[in-house]
Amino acid sequence: MNMKLTVDQSFEHLFSFTQEDVVKFAALTGDDNPLHLDAEFAANTSFKRPIMHGMLAATVFSKVLGTIFPGKGSVYLGQKLEFLRPMYVDTTYKATFKIIEVNEKKHTARIETHIYTTDRNKITLRGEASVLNAEVFAAQES
Amino acid sequence: MNMKLTVDQSFEHLFSFTQEDVVKFAALTGDDNPLHLDAEFAANTSFKRPIMHGMLAATVFSKVLGTIFPGKGSVYLGQKLEFLRPMYVDTTYKATFKIIEVNEKKHTARIETHIYTTDRNKITLRGEASVLNAEVFAAQES
Repeated sequence: MNMKLTVDQSFEHLFSFTQEDVVKFAALTGDDNPLHLDAEFAANTSFKRPIMHGMLAATVFSKVLGTIFPGKGSVYLGQKLEFLRPMYVDTTYKATFKIIEVNEKKHTARIETHIYTTDRNKITLRGEASVLNAEVFAAQES
Repeated sequence: MNMKLTVDQSFEHLFSFTQEDVVKFAALTGDDNPLHLDAEFAANTSFKRPIMHGMLAATVFSKVLGTIFPGKGSVYLGQKLEFLRPMYVDTTYKATFKIIEVNEKKHTARIETHIYTTDRNKITLRGEASVLNAEVFAAQES
C-alpha cells in the first residue's frame, strides 16, 4: 500500500498451503523432518498427522510485510515466533498485523504478527516483527 | 544425532543458497519483494544488489534443528530472529547452534542460533530457538 502507517493500523490476510508446498519447502530448505512429510511417522506423534513446517507458515509474515503491509521496499529487521498450535495443509488461516510502535527517526516499526484458525479463531502462531521502511515510517511532511 | 544433549553442547553447519533458490522461495511463499529479485531496484537501495530473504536464511535453523541437532522428531516451539546484516546468494555462511538451557521435565531446550560470514566471521543473523524433543531432552536414565 505504501501510504504512511501509524500505530494501531492493522491488516488481515487469509492464506493456505498444500502438501505439495510442504514438499517443495522441504526440498528447498533441506528440512525433511518426517513430522512434516511422513504420515506413518506423524501418526505415532501427538499430532496424529503431518503438520506444516512452522517456518513455512511464518513466511506469510515475510510475504505480507514485504509486499503489502507496509509493502515494497520493506527491510526485515527481526521476527519473534512462538509456534503455539500445529498447522495443517489445505486449511485456511488468517494472518493478522497490527502496528504497535513507529520510530519516525529510524523509519522503523514494531508490528504484532499473529496467525489464527479461521474456524474457531484460535491462535496458532504468535509473533512480532521489526521492519524498516523509509517511505512508510518517515515523519509526515508538513 | 539423537543422543542426549546437554547445556553448552554445540554444532556448526555450513550452507549457501543460489538465486534460483531465492526465486523458488519467492514463488512458494508469495514474497516477491523486489529487494530480493530485482537487481535494478536493489541497486537504488543501501544494499546495492539483491539480498536473500531473511526468512530463507532462517530456514537453516529449522533444517538443522529438525534433522541433525537435536534431529528427528524435534518440534519447533519458538524462534527469535534479528536480521543484523544482509546476506547474499552464492556465498557460504556458517550456522551455529549452542544449547543454553535444557528442561528435562518438559523435554525442551533453548538453543542459541546464529549465522556468521565465513570470510570475516561477522554475525548476520542472531537468534534463539525453543525446541521440544522427547528423546533428546529427557532425563538421563540411571
